Amino acid sequence: MSKMNAFYAQSGGVTAVINATACGVIETARKHPNKIANVYAGRNGIIGALTEDMIDTNRESAKVIAGLRHTPGGAFGSARYKLKSFEENRAEYERLIEVFKAHNIGYFFYNGGNDSMDTAHKVSQISRNLGFPVTCLGIPKTVDNDLPVTDNCPGFGSVAKYVAVSTKEAALDVLSMAKTSTKVFVLEVMGRHAGWIAAAGGLAGSGADGEPPHIILFPEIPFRKQAFLKRVRECVKKHDYCVIVVSEGASYANGRFLAEAGTVDAFGHAQLGGVAPVVAQMVRDNLGLKYHYAVADYLQRSARHIASATDVKQAYAVGQAAVRMALAGESAVMPVIKRVSDKPYRWKIEKAPLSRVANKEKMLPRRYISKDGFSITAAGRRYLEPLIRGEDYPPYINGLPNYVTLKSVPVSKRLNSNFVV
Amino acid sequence: MSKMNAFYAQSGGVTAVINATACGVIETARKHPNKIANVYAGRNGIIGALTEDMIDTNRESAKVIAGLRHTPGGAFGSARYKLKSFEENRAEYERLIEVFKAHNIGYFFYNGGNDSMDTAHKVSQISRNLGFPVTCLGIPKTVDNDLPVTDNCPGFGSVAKYVAVSTKEAALDVLSMAKTSTKVFVLEVMGRHAGWIAAAGGLAGSGADGEPPHIILFPEIPFRKQAFLKRVRECVKKHDYCVIVVSEGASYANGRFLAEAGTVDAFGHAQLGGVAPVVAQMVRDNLGLKYHYAVADYLQRSARHIASATDVKQAYAVGQAAVRMALAGESAVMPVIKRVSDKPYRWKIEKAPLSRVANKEKMLPRRYISKDGFSITAAGRRYLEPLIRGEDYPPYINGLPNYVTLKSVPVSKRLNSNFVV
Repeated sequence: MSKMNAFYAQSGGVTAVINATACGVIETARKHPNKIANVYAGRNGIIGALTEDMIDTNRESAKVIAGLRHTPGGAFGSARYKLKSFEENRAEYERLIEVFKAHNIGYFFYNGGNDSMDTAHKVSQISRNLGFPVTCLGIPKTVDNDLPVTDNCPGFGSVAKYVAVSTKEAALDVLSMAKTSTKVFVLEVMGRHAGWIAAAGGLAGSGADGEPPHIILFPEIPFRKQAFLKRVRECVKKHDYCVIVVSEGASYANGRFLAEAGTVDAFGHAQLGGVAPVVAQMVRDNLGLKYHYAVADYLQRSARHIASATDVKQAYAVGQAAVRMALAGESAVMPVIKRVSDKPYRWKIEKAPLSRVANKEKMLPRRYISKDGFSITAAGRRYLEPLIRGEDYPPYINGLPNYVTLKSVPVSKRLNSNFVV
Repeated sequence: MSKMNAFYAQSGGVTAVINATACGVIETARKHPNKIANVYAGRNGIIGALTEDMIDTNRESAKVIAGLRHTPGGAFGSARYKLKSFEENRAEYERLIEVFKAHNIGYFFYNGGNDSMDTAHKVSQISRNLGFPVTCLGIPKTVDNDLPVTDNCPGFGSVAKYVAVSTKEAALDVLSMAKTSTKVFVLEVMGRHAGWIAAAGGLAGSGADGEPPHIILFPEIPFRKQAFLKRVRECVKKHDYCVIVVSEGASYANGRFLAEAGTVDAFGHAQLGGVAPVVAQMVRDNLGLKYHYAVADYLQRSARHIASATDVKQAYAVGQAAVRMALAGESAVMPVIKRVSDKPYRWKIEKAPLSRVANKEKMLPRRYISKDGFSITAAGRRYLEPLIRGEDYPPYINGLPNYVTLKSVPVSKRLNSNFVV
C-alpha cells in the first residue's frame, strides 16, 4: 500500500490509560511516515468519522503526544454510539467509506470494547465490498476486563489498582473508628455484568481471615440477604468492623439489581440510586450498625494518578502493536495480551481475529470466587495481582498532575454533504 | 521534671497523616530518653486512658515507627468520645489522673480537633487541682480545617489534594463522554459545617471560564435551586458538560440540609442519603441531563497514596513541636502553623494557648468564595494552593502501599479497678 492516512477513534467509556494507547498508535505511526502520512483522530469517536469531524494529530507536538501516555480520559472525545447492522443502516457504512476515501484513509484503528470490535470487523468487510479496502484493527480497551481471548484488557489494571488501594486505605480508617463509631463500610465499584473490578477489591488484604475486604458482592453470585447479613454480623463480632466491596451489578437470583431497591423520592418517583446506600441501609435496618459508604464511580476509571505501571505499558503496547500489525498487512485483527507466566509475571502481544472477539463477554470464572461467594480464591489472586503492579506517576505542577491538552486542530472538510447521526 | 512517661492519643475522625504526627511525637520523644521513658498510646483514643488500655510504643521498632509517617488511619485507634464537663462527670477526670499517676505519666499529648483541645485544656487544669500536674499539649488534626489560630490543620492538605486531583481527573472523563452520554458529574465531599474541602475542589482548574469544577456548593452559601439549575443549564450549553463539587453540608436558607431531601425507601422510612444523588436527581428531573455522581466519603480522608507532601511535613512537625514544647516546660498550648509568605510558600511552627483554640470553629471566609457563591476567588486559591503541594508517595510492594501494622503490645495494668465508659 502506498502512503495513506490512518483514522483512530476511541469508543465507549474511557479509562485512565486509553490515551496511552493513542500515544502508542500515534508515536508508532510517526516512525513510518513513508507509509502513514498522518493519524486523523475522530472527534467524539466514530461520530467524528461519520460527520467528517477529525483532529489533525500531526499538528500536535511530540511532547504533547508523549504526554497522552500519562493523561486520563479520552483526549479526542469518545462516544457511546454503536453502528447498526449493515442491513439496518447501510448509509452509515457507506458514509464511513466515503469519508475514508475523501481523506485517503487506508487504516482504521478502533479503540474500544466488544461492540467496537464488531464495528471494526464490519468496516473491514464492507470496505472491501465497496471497493475501497481499509486495513481495520481493533484495539482493546475496557475497565470491565470482559473482552475474550486477551488475558486482560488495558484499562482494567488501573481501575483494579485504584479499587485495591482505596479499599486498603478506607479499611484502615474504619478500623480506627470502629470502637465508638463506624463499623461497616461499603464501597461501590463498577462492573454491571462482570465482577472483575469487585474482585480486585480482594487484593486489599492478603485473604487471611479478618483482613479486609471481609465481603465482596459479585454480579455473578446471586445475592442472598440472610446469608449476607449473617456474615456481616459475624464479621463485626469477630473483627470489630466489616468492609464490603459491592459491584454495581450485584443482583438477586431473579436478576433484579440490588440498586433497584424500590426506593422512591418525595414525589414517589423511582430513584436511580447506587447499590452502596441500599446495602448500607440494609445493614443499618437489620443489624443497627453505624455505616459509611463511598461510590467511586468515574473516580475509579479516571484515576491516572494511581495507574498500574503494568497497565500503562500494556495500553501503550497494544496501540503500538496495532500499527505494526497494520503495516505488516494484517487486517480484521486485534492485538491481545498473552500471559506467558504468573511468577515472574511475563506477557507478550499476540493477535486475534476480530470475529473471535466481537460481541462476546468474558465473565469472572467461578473458580476465582470462593465457595461461599464472598471473596476471591488463590487462583483469582494469582490472576489479578500482576495486573496492578508498579506505579507510573504523572508529572505534577503545583500539587496537581500535569495532564496535557491538545490543540485539536480540525482536518479541513472535503465533502459537501452533512451527515446527521 | 524527672524521667516520666508520656501518653499520646488520637481523637475524632482520622486522616491520611495523623500517624505522621504520631511518628513526630514518638521519634522526638525517643531522642530524649532521659526525660521521656516511654510513649504510651491510648488504644481507641482517650478511652484507652480511661480503661487503662494502652499500647507500649517502646516495643515497636524504629522502622515501624518511621513507617507511621506514610500510613493512613489511626494506628492506635481513635474515638468519637468527648469528656463531659468537670461538673457533669468528675469521675472521668479523676480516673484519667489515677491512670496517669499509676503509670507515671507526666505528659499528655492529645491529637484532635476543637473538642480534643477543650479536653486537653481541662485535663491540664484538673491535674493541677488534683495535685498531680500533667504537662498537656494539644496537637491539631482535622480534615475539616476548622481550627482557629493555626493557618491550616494537618490532615486538610491531603484531603484537599485528593479532592482537587479527583475532580480534575473525573472532569476529563466526563468531557470525553459528554457528546453522547454523561453531561453532568457531581462529586460529594466532606465538610458538614465548613466548606474548606469543597473549596479545594476549585483547585482542579485554573478558575478560567469553562474550566472544571463549574459549580461548587458550599455549606456557607444557602442553596438556591433555581439559580443552581440555571447555572447548570448555561454551563452545559456553553461547555458541553458541567462538573459540580458539593459539600455534604450544603443546605437551604432555612438550614435544612440538601441531603435530607425527604427521600423515603420502599417502606416509607426516611432515607439517610448523600447529597450527591439529591443534586444529581434535581438536575435530571428539571433539566433532563444524563448524570453520574461519586461519593468520596472515607476514601478522601484515608488517601495516603496521594497525600500532600506539605501536609505530611506539617503533620510531622506539629508532633515534633508538641514534644519539644512540653520538654521546654510549656503546657496547655497547641503548636500552630503560621504562614510566613504565600509565594514562595513559607511556614513555621508557633504556639497558641489551648483556651484560644478549644471549641471554636473557623469557617471558610466569605472573601474566598466568589460573589455568585459558586466558585473560589483568587484569594481563596492563594490560600489553598500551597497546602496541596508536593507528593509524598508511600513505598509499594506488589502494587499496593506498604502500610505498617503495629505489634500493639499492651502496657501491663497497674490498677485493680475497671472503668466503664
